[in-house]
Amino acid sequence: MTPIQPLSDAAFVLALGLFMLAPLAIAGVALINTGLGRSRSAAQSLLGSLAILAVSAIVFSLIGATFAGGPGAASHTILLSGKPWGWFGAGPWLLGGLNAAPSHAQLVLLFEFLAVALAALLPWGSGADRCRLLAGCAAAAILSSLVFPLTAHWIWGGGWLAQLGVNFQLGAGFLDGGGAATVNVLGGVSALALVWIAGPRRGKFPKEGLSTALPGHNAVYVLFGCLLALVGWLAWNVAGAVLFLHAPLSALPVTAVNTLLSAAGAVAATFAVTHVRFGKPDASLCANGWMAGLVTSSACAGLVTPLAAIFTGLVAGIVTPLLVELFELALSIDDPSGAIAVHGAGGLWGLLAAGIFAPQPGQLVAQLVGIATLLGVVLPLVYLLFWLLNRMLPFRVDPDGERIGMDLQELGGGAYPEFVIHRDESYR
Amino acid sequence: MTPIQPLSDAAFVLALGLFMLAPLAIAGVALINTGLGRSRSAAQSLLGSLAILAVSAIVFSLIGATFAGGPGAASHTILLSGKPWGWFGAGPWLLGGLNAAPSHAQLVLLFEFLAVALAALLPWGSGADRCRLLAGCAAAAILSSLVFPLTAHWIWGGGWLAQLGVNFQLGAGFLDGGGAATVNVLGGVSALALVWIAGPRRGKFPKEGLSTALPGHNAVYVLFGCLLALVGWLAWNVAGAVLFLHAPLSALPVTAVNTLLSAAGAVAATFAVTHVRFGKPDASLCANGWMAGLVTSSACAGLVTPLAAIFTGLVAGIVTPLLVELFELALSIDDPSGAIAVHGAGGLWGLLAAGIFAPQPGQLVAQLVGIATLLGVVLPLVYLLFWLLNRMLPFRVDPDGERIGMDLQELGGGAYPEFVIHRDESYR
Amino acid sequence: MTPIQPLSDAAFVLALGLFMLAPLAIAGVALINTGLGRSRSAAQSLLGSLAILAVSAIVFSLIGATFAGGPGAASHTILLSGKPWGWFGAGPWLLGGLNAAPSHAQLVLLFEFLAVALAALLPWGSGADRCRLLAGCAAAAILSSLVFPLTAHWIWGGGWLAQLGVNFQLGAGFLDGGGAATVNVLGGVSALALVWIAGPRRGKFPKEGLSTALPGHNAVYVLFGCLLALVGWLAWNVAGAVLFLHAPLSALPVTAVNTLLSAAGAVAATFAVTHVRFGKPDASLCANGWMAGLVTSSACAGLVTPLAAIFTGLVAGIVTPLLVELFELALSIDDPSGAIAVHGAGGLWGLLAAGIFAPQPGQLVAQLVGIATLLGVVLPLVYLLFWLLNRMLPFRVDPDGERIGMDLQELGGGAYPEFVIHRDESYR
Repeated sequence: MTPIQPLSDAAFVLALGLFMLAPLAIAGVALINTGLGRSRSAAQSLLGSLAILAVSAIVFSLIGATFAGGPGAASHTILLSGKPWGWFGAGPWLLGGLNAAPSHAQLVLLFEFLAVALAALLPWGSGADRCRLLAGCAAAAILSSLVFPLTAHWIWGGGWLAQLGVNFQLGAGFLDGGGAATVNVLGGVSALALVWIAGPRRGKFPKEGLSTALPGHNAVYVLFGCLLALVGWLAWNVAGAVLFLHAPLSALPVTAVNTLLSAAGAVAATFAVTHVRFGKPDASLCANGWMAGLVTSSACAGLVTPLAAIFTGLVAGIVTPLLVELFELALSIDDPSGAIAVHGAGGLWGLLAAGIFAPQPGQLVAQLVGIATLLGVVLPLVYLLFWLLNRMLPFRVDPDGERIGMDLQELGGGAYPEFVIHRDESYR
Repeated sequence: MTPIQPLSDAAFVLALGLFMLAPLAIAGVALINTGLGRSRSAAQSLLGSLAILAVSAIVFSLIGATFAGGPGAASHTILLSGKPWGWFGAGPWLLGGLNAAPSHAQLVLLFEFLAVALAALLPWGSGADRCRLLAGCAAAAILSSLVFPLTAHWIWGGGWLAQLGVNFQLGAGFLDGGGAATVNVLGGVSALALVWIAGPRRGKFPKEGLSTALPGHNAVYVLFGCLLALVGWLAWNVAGAVLFLHAPLSALPVTAVNTLLSAAGAVAATFAVTHVRFGKPDASLCANGWMAGLVTSSACAGLVTPLAAIFTGLVAGIVTPLLVELFELALSIDDPSGAIAVHGAGGLWGLLAAGIFAPQPGQLVAQLVGIATLLGVVLPLVYLLFWLLNRMLPFRVDPDGERIGMDLQELGGGAYPEFVIHRDESYR
Repeated sequence: MTPIQPLSDAAFVLALGLFMLAPLAIAGVALINTGLGRSRSAAQSLLGSLAILAVSAIVFSLIGATFAGGPGAASHTILLSGKPWGWFGAGPWLLGGLNAAPSHAQLVLLFEFLAVALAALLPWGSGADRCRLLAGCAAAAILSSLVFPLTAHWIWGGGWLAQLGVNFQLGAGFLDGGGAATVNVLGGVSALALVWIAGPRRGKFPKEGLSTALPGHNAVYVLFGCLLALVGWLAWNVAGAVLFLHAPLSALPVTAVNTLLSAAGAVAATFAVTHVRFGKPDASLCANGWMAGLVTSSACAGLVTPLAAIFTGLVAGIVTPLLVELFELALSIDDPSGAIAVHGAGGLWGLLAAGIFAPQPGQLVAQLVGIATLLGVVLPLVYLLFWLLNRMLPFRVDPDGERIGMDLQELGGGAYPEFVIHRDESYR
């Protein structure tokens, strides 16, 4: 059990107010996902986002919140090398007594409601244009009932990864101020599991020749979504620094500046990299780069200097387009939203960078233990659960449904009934 | 006169900051209205929203604010059964002395500026594709000069509905923490009055056969608007709980969670209901359901437990699509935005549920008195005023104008001049 | 050096929280710019906005922040008439020691990050449909390294314009609570310099006949962007009043109401003016008017009464459409976004009105000195720098590139690949 920091009223209202703003991160990502998909799937993409948000919130309130526990709440612990390690939370059922909980714990729980929804949204974007609404909702239920609560308990709820500091003197324990691990890496590895199981879109990798470019149907949604996401991420990172890094008020403006600089460095780097590789900058990869910069900042913004924030962003912006290409061309992974590279790899890089730049001794080791856990425990766990789910409730629609588009197939009508859409011969 | 609760600085800055966010509720509803209308009316719909926001703000500042009064301000009272009942406010003219007013009163007034704008926007959405800009602005002027100020004074300004508690021991008096009555029911009954008077769109109810489905022209606007509205509603409900429910800071995270859970329960229920009825979920009804869940939370979020919030949302999500169908098929009401069902009925349900779930004795009776007032006094009053308005300044454009679309008719140009739009034979 | 007002914790968290919201002003303006341009340039417009935001933030953090200095920071001063005048800042390099700076100075710096980005975005909107990404980024680098820091230092950083009060008893010195000068006029005069140098779009002013109307490609983006911008401006003005007008908490609700009323008055006036002139209201000019009202409020909202806020808005709303027409028809200036009239002239009017309505003696003179500086020093400086830039890195694409559209030319693909777009004969 971690001792609870009593929050000042000013810190409490700041974090609470910022959480009201934080759903703009969700709105931004949902809009980006829609814009990167096909026009024939646009309504299904966004309706799925609403449904996933709903399922996550309900399932988390009924089941997940108990296992997530929270700082100061009870925890199922295991003694190992003579020390107690929190394994999963033992919070009250059905959010009982939330009113009477310490203010810090209340805010952590509120944050988790938003975090689980964003995490569950990421695989949905990667499965765009081919995954069924019900399967997407079921995947969200799996993440919000079990996988996210475990991960959140370990990291945010005073569980064993957070205890690495107290128990083993590894810095301050595994640090994740803004959800780089609990939200972005969790969502990214879930996206990887989903696209491995569901497979690529029809026509994406023809039997002969190169993979087909299937550009997103609306670049305005994608790039405007990036601007909205900035607002959400700023709120997320500053509030997270209050809750999870115990930052004093005077450290928060730098956290905000770092968030912006990380995104700025990343999009500048992606702009340059794609300009060099393709002769022209690529708008959708630049959006990926921008988001990867934000994701990186989720781990780093509260811990590094502005110069280091630019640097971590630059690295994210260089690596992201290369990873997107690698996944697509070398590994035949079809990830329309790029969540695996953006949120998965971007989050891992941020967590690593936080260890590199943090002054405390041992912090890098703590971060590496956390990263290993995410890749070695969380990824296989999600893969297994999604694989089982896919046996009962297949992710994919049938080929005919995919051909006519998810909107007609799943909703019976398109998103843009009055606009004339190009016939797409590659799908016929 | 209600005694004024002095607000702590922390509560003051929280509510003030949230009100800066609250216009996202207006932006979300405006975008939903536009998306649910035709492409040939899109610019007129949104320009009308700006104009209505402008007219509401100006008229409320010049006239309405005086009648709305506010907590602690003077009120014209009538003695009845030996007790004083506030009938309409007697605030200063032209916002005089706002700087020197108690902080609580300042924030109530600021809230009312946003509330009146959102209320006035709701009939505009229901009159989409056929109502004229000037008539829409005139309707907004009526609501913001007289009807909203009266309602707000009775409920938020310490008037007779708020006094039911002190004067008659009916719970805490009529409770409406987030504008379920003052904004949503008021807007919903105004929408009903307007569509009764203006009539349905041409071609909606042909002489023979069933009513014509006129799907909204952009599902992305509609569903993305729902996500934006969530942010606005969170801000609205939390700030309202501070101002009107006198909630301590520690009760606010639950209010936020309840807002989310109510929308979540509602959209899940509508998804299920439309899936069962039509074989596939209906995106635009799901958006209606989501919004109805938010509207329900405007009355309930600060008063109920999370489980009850899910329950009230589920009910809203089940009832809303049935009501939309009932209004359209059985009553031949053409309400493109669904505001009558979503905001009107959703708000009434929330107000009722607040009475059912509130622990204070007599609260249910207070809520029923308020509901009866909204239906028995406010609805006829709005109908009468709109009927008079329609005699002087008809709501509807002429049939030719409706055929070419509101953009060409009223603005001389379309919203999407470069995109090719399907010819719509049903209109020719 | 200005003495630093210590901020209360409540004021600090309010301003900090509002700054997290303030990027919605940037998002709104970026969306308006995109909607007012052609569909064939939409992706380039928004990618340019992201890139400009990135370049501004990075360059400002590396270079500009030092010269901007800040309240309480060191300043290079010149003795004139026996008094020290701050000329440019001598802040620490690379944001060193930001954590340890006084809270007020931290927030000013955070504000400046957002302010410089918005200022740099304005010329980009005016150069739409013809300017190159790299030149746009270079222009942003010029503004954020040198021109904005100087201006901000003079006005916000305790420099010579701010010192007019202390040194010459001119009111409280030049006042600009919300960035009317540092952001809007600076951006507006930069837009003027850019379009002077870059020239009009092909086909805008044919050799014979009147200028061609090139309506924006998506009125929904434009008008919805206005609603988003309202949120950003509210945050901006209220936070600015805390930082630069030293407003007590109790003065802030009026500041918010004034912001809304200024926009409301402006859009009502533009609606009326265009209705009278053209027989129908013009949606895009009304959007210009709304934004001009917001810009006006950036100077006035914290200083005037609500009635005066309506009045200043009305004037802005009357003048803006006339100026737009004057620039286009009489001066052959092709400014698709209208930034010169909206942000340039609107900001100047706001600064003047602040002097007219402020009670302090001498304030009007201080405002006039500031206005003269913006027009007499900042405009020529920007023109010179942009002219030099244009010699090295021309703003314009070649005529063929302009014909095919900026998206194809600069990005290799369009924003809406699945939608059928009208062929535009005027361009062939």
